[in-house]
Amino acid sequence: MASVIIGIAGGTGSGKTTLTNQLKEKFSEKVSIVYHDNYYKRMDSLTFEERKKVNYDSPYAFDTDIMIEDLRTLKSGKAIQCPVYDFTVHNRTDRTITVNPADVIIVEGILVFQNKELRELMDIKIFVDSDADERLIRRIMRDYVERKRSLESVCDQYRATVKPMHEKYVEPSKKYADIIVVGGGNNPVALDMISTKVEKLLRE
Amino acid sequence: MASVIIGIAGGTGSGKTTLTNQLKEKFSEKVSIVYHDNYYKRMDSLTFEERKKVNYDSPYAFDTDIMIEDLRTLKSGKAIQCPVYDFTVHNRTDRTITVNPADVIIVEGILVFQNKELRELMDIKIFVDSDADERLIRRIMRDYVERKRSLESVCDQYRATVKPMHEKYVEPSKKYADIIVVGGGNNPVALDMISTKVEKLLRE
Repeated sequence: MASVIIGIAGGTGSGKTTLTNQLKEKFSEKVSIVYHDNYYKRMDSLTFEERKKVNYDSPYAFDTDIMIEDLRTLKSGKAIQCPVYDFTVHNRTDRTITVNPADVIIVEGILVFQNKELRELMDIKIFVDSDADERLIRRIMRDYVERKRSLESVCDQYRATVKPMHEKYVEPSKKYADIIVVGGGNNPVALDMISTKVEKLLRE
Repeated sequence: MASVIIGIAGGTGSGKTTLTNQLKEKFSEKVSIVYHDNYYKRMDSLTFEERKKVNYDSPYAFDTDIMIEDLRTLKSGKAIQCPVYDFTVHNRTDRTITVNPADVIIVEGILVFQNKELRELMDIKIFVDSDADERLIRRIMRDYVERKRSLESVCDQYRATVKPMHEKYVEPSKKYADIIVVGGGNNPVALDMISTKVEKLLRE
């Protein structure tokens, strides 16, 4: 059987990573996960200060073509060397990690439904949806509390790129989803329904 | 095992009945279906002309308490005598149909998530979502083409009650859903995911 590709999209702080992690925990190596974030373009020619100002919420920030190629490779049954992005330096590292082929491959990212070629590779498209204020709170918690950025820079970036790119690209891509998970990552009924489908795919 | 109650809500023309019918076709008598529409209040004291003017999109048009009682009866393993509504005369009939208890009970209607007591009876809440213009087209097709109402009366009713009640009650109740089915009843991926869960429930 060919791999089934499940796309999980949603805005920043929507809970898509929480959902993805729950599936990862449940199915461990039976499911492979590819994060769009790891395919941020290399920005070696820019200084750290310049990289801080890059619009990371635009589709143009990603090497999506490389990810599409990698997904085709995985689907054909071969492992890939997945790039690794480092948020602390705002750049892709020289490291890669091996992602093995699996019956179920999850593709996760804010913009994975925005690219037509990418979304057409997916068999199941799940959009994780949360209110904008709830997403902002989670974003602040992550960037200010965990990643130790200043509150001002988090809010400035939110206003300058996160919100406009969300409205321009992420929100409109919701219409390509098959199902929407309401209220983010802590939705046991949705998790159970998705898990039941994944279990069945792994049995087949 | 106690019955699992699945709520299927969504605006007029959203495709919720199509989804419900697909599940009915797939699982036949293993799944029982209760339509909120059959619990429209009796309007025997009103003339036909008066009944035509009733706001059928308001929660106050329904005997929801009777439906809640009936669902509790079904959940306890006993059959119910479900009322039967007749759209051609805008009134509940004297007939009833027997609905048998089942492992899975589907509750369908535009407002089934609006009533707190009702939605708290549900184990899985599915909202079928479609764009307003798409829903209007389906409404016109149903009421004008199938039910032979005049186009003017369909549009007048849509503006007078369907749209305002949708915005006041149906749309806000979407947030109580666990998952949203995107684009209405012809969504094979969502149907498959829901069916997979129902199959599992019937196996347990």
